Amino acid sequence: MGSSFGKNINVSIFGQSHSASIGVVIDGLPAGHRIDLEKLGQFMSRRAPGRNEYSTQRSESDTPVILSGLKDGVLCGAPFAAVIKNTDAVSRDYSEVSDKPRPGHADFTAQMKYNGTQDYSGGGHFSGRLTAPLCIAGGIMLQLLEEEGIKVGAHICEIAGVRDFSFDPVNVSEEDFDRLRASSFPVNDPEAGEIMKSAISAAKKAGDSVGGVIECAAIGLPAGVGDPMFDGMENMIACTVFAIPAVKGIEFGSGFTGSRSMGSANNDPFTWENGMIRTLTNNHGGILGGITSGMPLIFRVSIKPTPSISIEQETVSFSAKEKTKISIKGRHDPCIVPRAIPCVESAASLAIYDSLLGSRIHRKGENNR
Amino acid sequence: MGSSFGKNINVSIFGQSHSASIGVVIDGLPAGHRIDLEKLGQFMSRRAPGRNEYSTQRSESDTPVILSGLKDGVLCGAPFAAVIKNTDAVSRDYSEVSDKPRPGHADFTAQMKYNGTQDYSGGGHFSGRLTAPLCIAGGIMLQLLEEEGIKVGAHICEIAGVRDFSFDPVNVSEEDFDRLRASSFPVNDPEAGEIMKSAISAAKKAGDSVGGVIECAAIGLPAGVGDPMFDGMENMIACTVFAIPAVKGIEFGSGFTGSRSMGSANNDPFTWENGMIRTLTNNHGGILGGITSGMPLIFRVSIKPTPSISIEQETVSFSAKEKTKISIKGRHDPCIVPRAIPCVESAASLAIYDSLLGSRIHRKGENNR
Amino acid sequence: MGSSFGKNINVSIFGQSHSASIGVVIDGLPAGHRIDLEKLGQFMSRRAPGRNEYSTQRSESDTPVILSGLKDGVLCGAPFAAVIKNTDAVSRDYSEVSDKPRPGHADFTAQMKYNGTQDYSGGGHFSGRLTAPLCIAGGIMLQLLEEEGIKVGAHICEIAGVRDFSFDPVNVSEEDFDRLRASSFPVNDPEAGEIMKSAISAAKKAGDSVGGVIECAAIGLPAGVGDPMFDGMENMIACTVFAIPAVKGIEFGSGFTGSRSMGSANNDPFTWENGMIRTLTNNHGGILGGITSGMPLIFRVSIKPTPSISIEQETVSFSAKEKTKISIKGRHDPCIVPRAIPCVESAASLAIYDSLLGSRIHRKGENNR
Amino acid sequence: MGSSFGKNINVSIFGQSHSASIGVVIDGLPAGHRIDLEKLGQFMSRRAPGRNEYSTQRSESDTPVILSGLKDGVLCGAPFAAVIKNTDAVSRDYSEVSDKPRPGHADFTAQMKYNGTQDYSGGGHFSGRLTAPLCIAGGIMLQLLEEEGIKVGAHICEIAGVRDFSFDPVNVSEEDFDRLRASSFPVNDPEAGEIMKSAISAAKKAGDSVGGVIECAAIGLPAGVGDPMFDGMENMIACTVFAIPAVKGIEFGSGFTGSRSMGSANNDPFTWENGMIRTLTNNHGGILGGITSGMPLIFRVSIKPTPSISIEQETVSFSAKEKTKISIKGRHDPCIVPRAIPCVESAASLAIYDSLLGSRIHRKGENNR
Repeated sequence: MGSSFGKNINVSIFGQSHSASIGVVIDGLPAGHRIDLEKLGQFMSRRAPGRNEYSTQRSESDTPVILSGLKDGVLCGAPFAAVIKNTDAVSRDYSEVSDKPRPGHADFTAQMKYNGTQDYSGGGHFSGRLTAPLCIAGGIMLQLLEEEGIKVGAHICEIAGVRDFSFDPVNVSEEDFDRLRASSFPVNDPEAGEIMKSAISAAKKAGDSVGGVIECAAIGLPAGVGDPMFDGMENMIACTVFAIPAVKGIEFGSGFTGSRSMGSANNDPFTWENGMIRTLTNNHGGILGGITSGMPLIFRVSIKPTPSISIEQETVSFSAKEKTKISIKGRHDPCIVPRAIPCVESAASLAIYDSLLGSRIHRKGENNR
Repeated sequence: MGSSFGKNINVSIFGQSHSASIGVVIDGLPAGHRIDLEKLGQFMSRRAPGRNEYSTQRSESDTPVILSGLKDGVLCGAPFAAVIKNTDAVSRDYSEVSDKPRPGHADFTAQMKYNGTQDYSGGGHFSGRLTAPLCIAGGIMLQLLEEEGIKVGAHICEIAGVRDFSFDPVNVSEEDFDRLRASSFPVNDPEAGEIMKSAISAAKKAGDSVGGVIECAAIGLPAGVGDPMFDGMENMIACTVFAIPAVKGIEFGSGFTGSRSMGSANNDPFTWENGMIRTLTNNHGGILGGITSGMPLIFRVSIKPTPSISIEQETVSFSAKEKTKISIKGRHDPCIVPRAIPCVESAASLAIYDSLLGSRIHRKGENNR
Repeated sequence: MGSSFGKNINVSIFGQSHSASIGVVIDGLPAGHRIDLEKLGQFMSRRAPGRNEYSTQRSESDTPVILSGLKDGVLCGAPFAAVIKNTDAVSRDYSEVSDKPRPGHADFTAQMKYNGTQDYSGGGHFSGRLTAPLCIAGGIMLQLLEEEGIKVGAHICEIAGVRDFSFDPVNVSEEDFDRLRASSFPVNDPEAGEIMKSAISAAKKAGDSVGGVIECAAIGLPAGVGDPMFDGMENMIACTVFAIPAVKGIEFGSGFTGSRSMGSANNDPFTWENGMIRTLTNNHGGILGGITSGMPLIFRVSIKPTPSISIEQETVSFSAKEKTKISIKGRHDPCIVPRAIPCVESAASLAIYDSLLGSRIHRKGENNR
Repeated sequence: MGSSFGKNINVSIFGQSHSASIGVVIDGLPAGHRIDLEKLGQFMSRRAPGRNEYSTQRSESDTPVILSGLKDGVLCGAPFAAVIKNTDAVSRDYSEVSDKPRPGHADFTAQMKYNGTQDYSGGGHFSGRLTAPLCIAGGIMLQLLEEEGIKVGAHICEIAGVRDFSFDPVNVSEEDFDRLRASSFPVNDPEAGEIMKSAISAAKKAGDSVGGVIECAAIGLPAGVGDPMFDGMENMIACTVFAIPAVKGIEFGSGFTGSRSMGSANNDPFTWENGMIRTLTNNHGGILGGITSGMPLIFRVSIKPTPSISIEQETVSFSAKEKTKISIKGRHDPCIVPRAIPCVESAASLAIYDSLLGSRIHRKGENNR
């Protein structure tokens, strides 16, 4: 059941790299919200392949077709369903994979789990292509969050070890997000961005790949959202973010760095500001005890180098039961980080919106409908 | 519903720092397994307070009382329930907290979520004390995993920035775990351990605190456990590990470091070894596509410095609606890392065992009962 | 995981007939509501054994001990946990059962499911005794529902085929409920009640038992609660009501009888009444499309005759692998229907309150906390 | 989230009567099973409209298009997704409904839940049309159950109060199912069938409708499937069966009738038969304590008379806030019972297959994958 998510909504993602379609069903969305399909398309285009020189040339249009859930453009209470047709699939590129697992991919583990009946072509259900329906869901959530005054944004924080300026954890703003969203290579420090691009180009030339770190923030979140223990904001966001292939780590606020400081430095002092309680610093990343503090929610995600590289690698043959070599052909991103940004925003928005709905349940003294 | 976990089992944790009891119910455990209560008690004692000079002096016996679920010491199919009585609670220590949120604690966010009706005393349900029932559950799971040949172990990887030797990611062994389990300050490098201890002592003297990193591994896991996307091993482990207060980050395998390397270096080549497919390196941390590879499952968790410090800190008064100061009295660990080790093992074992049960569902060609 | 229930709350029931304790944890209750423990005790006493000549003489006090979840008598957001000690257990009464399954009981099916490791004593987790923690949860829910102006009540609708007057489906009132709640044998038609009692006495004398039907209603429910398809009010109530041992059927509104009428007779015409839309009749039992209509929610539940009878019955011996006889000794209700009434009310209130919480999520245009 | 079902699988149904498509996603199916799409089509055709004189003339082809989840016709572990295009929708037939709720339909309750933003056209998500994707899921489950030797069948038990012969609860056989499946009006007693048909014709002529009862059985189920309390087979089947519009009641085994008999008559004596434990009678309907006994699982479902009738009915106008009349035009079944049979089989198979998967988890002493 791994491809379904949600406590208060049920997001169910389906499809394989080369199945007829890929898509998503979202059950449990509140009725009455207008969905801007053009805006959704723009959001989707940020992860679409073939967008610049650093991304695979596979040129799916990736336009979601809405199957249900809207009445005259408005969420009508029925489950929302949308699909994307797979039109540009080239199955033959992957024929070798059925016998030789690609290092760093799920080919081997899927073989073990499904006893060889999995759809190996293009990575099947484990393909990065499945982040497209994740982004459909995310694009919807981002619109719903925006209606509540909540914005989510992200930037390339690091590629190949080259660092971008971090968000100001106390003052990250909507303007930051707008600026980043307008860029096809969203960084805060353009100079660092140029060095990153060079590193990607060098890796591409070498038939190799690089990874990086994405920093994501949500602002406008009210205090008091999230649950204790297993359903805290950190748990929920980690749960959705690790659904993105290539993610291998996540940290909130000061994260691993904070674990090296003293309590007196890492604790964020409370203060009054315009009649509201805020913290002077934001090492807690907007979350204490799993619950939002009203400060910007901030986390960073590590993205491993794209496992598909054209350099020859050692692997095994399932059939021959011996070692062999593999050299991955086909179209691959030498660095997945830029295209992963809307995916991280999507994952975050799923977790945040689900938690926000959950927080409605527990308001005391409220009348019911 | 944050205090419940599980897809195939339902672990429900209850209690507050100063409620009559704290405890856990585990629904869905397979019947027929003998539980060694003495072994469970030994495991619990690893997180018990008052164990050494670096931990709080609160001296609860922390002995779990079994209420149900066993028949003659064997799991009988009925939900397992156990409680620990809160005998040594000193509520007056915390009276100030009802009005002044402690920086770095959940006092403020709980106040916002529950509108002041939360049990603020001792941190209520957000107290580190609630990791005791987590460890009851974990102790049970570890025994069940052991029956399947799966072992889980952890060590202090870092305290106050001082690093221990990491596990050998390819060859971490049961002997490593046994050695670590026998130690009250489990490190691989005794010299580093001494420096860490000095750092803790210095922090204690200064009324301050330090944090660190815990590295945890599971060995003996078969390949093929875990689900795609949202229920992958990474998602599930992150979901349970962030239930431990003070955890702010997690990374699997090469994690954030791996995101700085090249694909050719980070990909783990496959090979045949004794008739099985293994990888020569283990940057993937035993998980590819959310599914176990059969290699050691390895992750690291960042623990923030204990937020309770006696140094005076800035905070606010809810009632006076103005800034004030707080100086936290009472008994607190200057470093929570050593006591957090069995908690991390517990969290990991919950996620792993739940996933293992789930993997039983999807074995093709098996007869049903 | 069968002993856990809920979409928006998590109710986890534990215990066996003769375990140290039985109890319940409820995770996800809104904070801030005062719980009247005396009222809870009164509610519990309605199902307590040993209450009149028709019920088993086992005289547990059945007083729930609250372990957590309250702060000064008010729900504090932490999971609510309560237990009842098993003090009057007489294990020897059931020794025969380990080898000879009692007809009509779960002894045999539990043996098959748990391979003989189940706690057979007193029926273990399948014992009617486990409805005590169900009633703790139900008693809490009923208080929370009452705060929303929602009342739940039930009466003996039929025993041994003798019928009571049904509720007036359009006008069932709080006064009806108050009157019924005050009676130890709650019927609308006292004459029918006397005949029922004679039937029970006759069955008891014969070492036999009788069953019956309970009718339950909820009033004050707003229109619009419940979800389509699988989470409709009917689905949810059926899901909780079948948790009561001995329940074998449920029907809503006109139910099976309605299936024999014409559409023109069974459809309920809409009308305006005091500025609200109501129906003139209530064959739909207050639910259309799974969602409440604002009319009284009405359902009936069939209770099979108590399977424990002292008349000798045919059964098998697991060990001897042959047919044998069994004659059930010990203390048993010749008719479980009266004591099942608070259980049915509890089951209904669980489903209704969970759905009510869920309906809060989907209010458009509401601000979040 | 009402349109999703499952503990071990996640079935997510989407669509409205007049949305672009309707469909279903099933996550969590075991990989490796071949799906016979022709057989699925045949099963679907049993509920298709326009099949005989008693059903609506809407002539959708209702052929499911598979979007994902199969690799060369075999379940590949990825979520299974299929859609049916809505081609024959005539929206204008329903324009009146937006203001005048049809008695017996969900128009009013949906209006209350979704504040008028619901898709009222054709009943939207509450339309009987949504049982088509339910039958896609059911058709898949029936094939998977068949691989385990489990068969599910059903017959018209009653229409307009006219009774068919019941299944022999001890000896219902695959031959019974085959015979019934071959008939477009599946009854055990052809004479009763003719009288039922006359009743339907008479109702049709009068612009009215009739309801009935469906009896469903599952054979070949091993003993030991199902969980205690809330996840018993009765709970699960009730949960899926009430997802079918028009279902208002369900009873298992002797059900309501059994509640009128004595314990000595209703209890089913155990016996040995060919080395297996069976019961001589089957008043328990194959379920004791929520768990299968290995005897035929039998239940009956009440179906209310089709609420869509052309006879003029009283209703209200939302806009005018006053009483008015409605006369429902368009194409409607005077009796939904025959077409509901595959829906009941589907609902049963969903619940049974999910429980069967769950039972795999709890086999002690089994090796994991």
